[in-house]
Amino acid sequence: MAHQDWQRLFLQAKQWTKEAGESIRKSMGDTFEVHTKAHQHDLVTDVDRQTEAFYKDKIRESYPNHRIMGEEGLGDDVKDLVGTVWIIDPIDGTVNFVHQQCYFAISLGIFHEGIGMVGIVYDVMADEMFTAVKGQGAFLNEEALPVLPKVSLEESILSFNVGWVLKDRRLETLVEKSRAVRSYGAAALEIAYVACGRLDAYISFNLAPWDIAGGSVILQEVQGQATNYKGKELTFLGKDTLLAANPHIYKEVIREIHE
Amino acid sequence: MAHQDWQRLFLQAKQWTKEAGESIRKSMGDTFEVHTKAHQHDLVTDVDRQTEAFYKDKIRESYPNHRIMGEEGLGDDVKDLVGTVWIIDPIDGTVNFVHQQCYFAISLGIFHEGIGMVGIVYDVMADEMFTAVKGQGAFLNEEALPVLPKVSLEESILSFNVGWVLKDRRLETLVEKSRAVRSYGAAALEIAYVACGRLDAYISFNLAPWDIAGGSVILQEVQGQATNYKGKELTFLGKDTLLAANPHIYKEVIREIHE
Repeated sequence: MAHQDWQRLFLQAKQWTKEAGESIRKSMGDTFEVHTKAHQHDLVTDVDRQTEAFYKDKIRESYPNHRIMGEEGLGDDVKDLVGTVWIIDPIDGTVNFVHQQCYFAISLGIFHEGIGMVGIVYDVMADEMFTAVKGQGAFLNEEALPVLPKVSLEESILSFNVGWVLKDRRLETLVEKSRAVRSYGAAALEIAYVACGRLDAYISFNLAPWDIAGGSVILQEVQGQATNYKGKELTFLGKDTLLAANPHIYKEVIREIHE
Repeated sequence: MAHQDWQRLFLQAKQWTKEAGESIRKSMGDTFEVHTKAHQHDLVTDVDRQTEAFYKDKIRESYPNHRIMGEEGLGDDVKDLVGTVWIIDPIDGTVNFVHQQCYFAISLGIFHEGIGMVGIVYDVMADEMFTAVKGQGAFLNEEALPVLPKVSLEESILSFNVGWVLKDRRLETLVEKSRAVRSYGAAALEIAYVACGRLDAYISFNLAPWDIAGGSVILQEVQGQATNYKGKELTFLGKDTLLAANPHIYKEVIREIHE
């Protein structure tokens, strides 16, 4: 696809995401069914499914040759990134959605032959939309995000779930060496926060491609780094760990954990 | 003071808080000086000081007999809660203010003979104002907050800084038994989040009266509970720990930690 075609695809995806967000906001007062997935921390609602179905219908109609990898499994059984693949989390942060009615996001990454071309992370209730098209910079709503500035670990705000500290005590070093640690419970949003400098690094031990696809495209446009927790390249094809970071502390974080 | 006088005082304080918030929002693009206080995690800016000075001038003019206990120390040297005392944190979450330009709040509690009469916590960037006048219920903007519903620890979202887990390993039980743990780095806001049900409990090991005064008035209006970490009554006169919780899990949290 040519440059202007990706731009057109992006504008289309952005428009759909605004519509999906509007529809979620309208439904916030309604009651909805909450189901528990594999374990008690993993929830899914009708709204997750409806939102993914909305994207599926739109994509099938406009781009019948594109494939869809979505959290709720309404798309295709994607086992490689050949061609164009939409990687969708209809509601990233479902526990927040159910419990807080805020701090959740729609996450969307469009990959072409394995390369992230379009990224959208939309904080529906705050109406903050983080976007990027490869090579064209990243934006928060209409504002361009600058390339990430120099920062030291001592001045950094990191983000990870306290539960991971119980699983890997080496994270305690990062707690002690950084300025502060936060946790918002919505991976896509937390990667977007690294991209806009609200956080300097985000770590998770268990994420799926749909949690990270949109955010990783946005992050690369501001020269942020995203790999798994061991520093290996992300495949966007299965569960993995994640370290998304400001490039000036990325290596130090890896070193503090693994050396 | 009669009932309607507290209502008038509240409306005045609310108006000033809106003005202070507006002024902070306008200054967000400006550069400001950041100073480090006792240690590297404790920051203060010109904006903290200017905001406290704004309140001081307004209160001195309208209520010359009231005393002021403020984080920046521009008010009085308050050692008791005799008479009417305004307890002010001009910017709760200064690290977030400096680093994130969001997730900070103005916190204001007005106490009379030791009793919390008015509470205001204002998330300036999200334009969310949590308010309460004793005996008249709590509000988020114009919406009345319901009395906190029944919740179990297993379904709860808690909030505390991961750093506290390193100081007291008993918190690990709560990590394991709850649905999720968050951390936003702004105490007043996190107490307000307990009051509106976004969180079910918030724990901190080191807070000053101005961090908790506003939130605690709001919390009591929805029948939430706030004591120190050991279950002892708060004095609002010196540094202390805090457990602010939904009343249905308060006792269980205390038990999990201390028994």
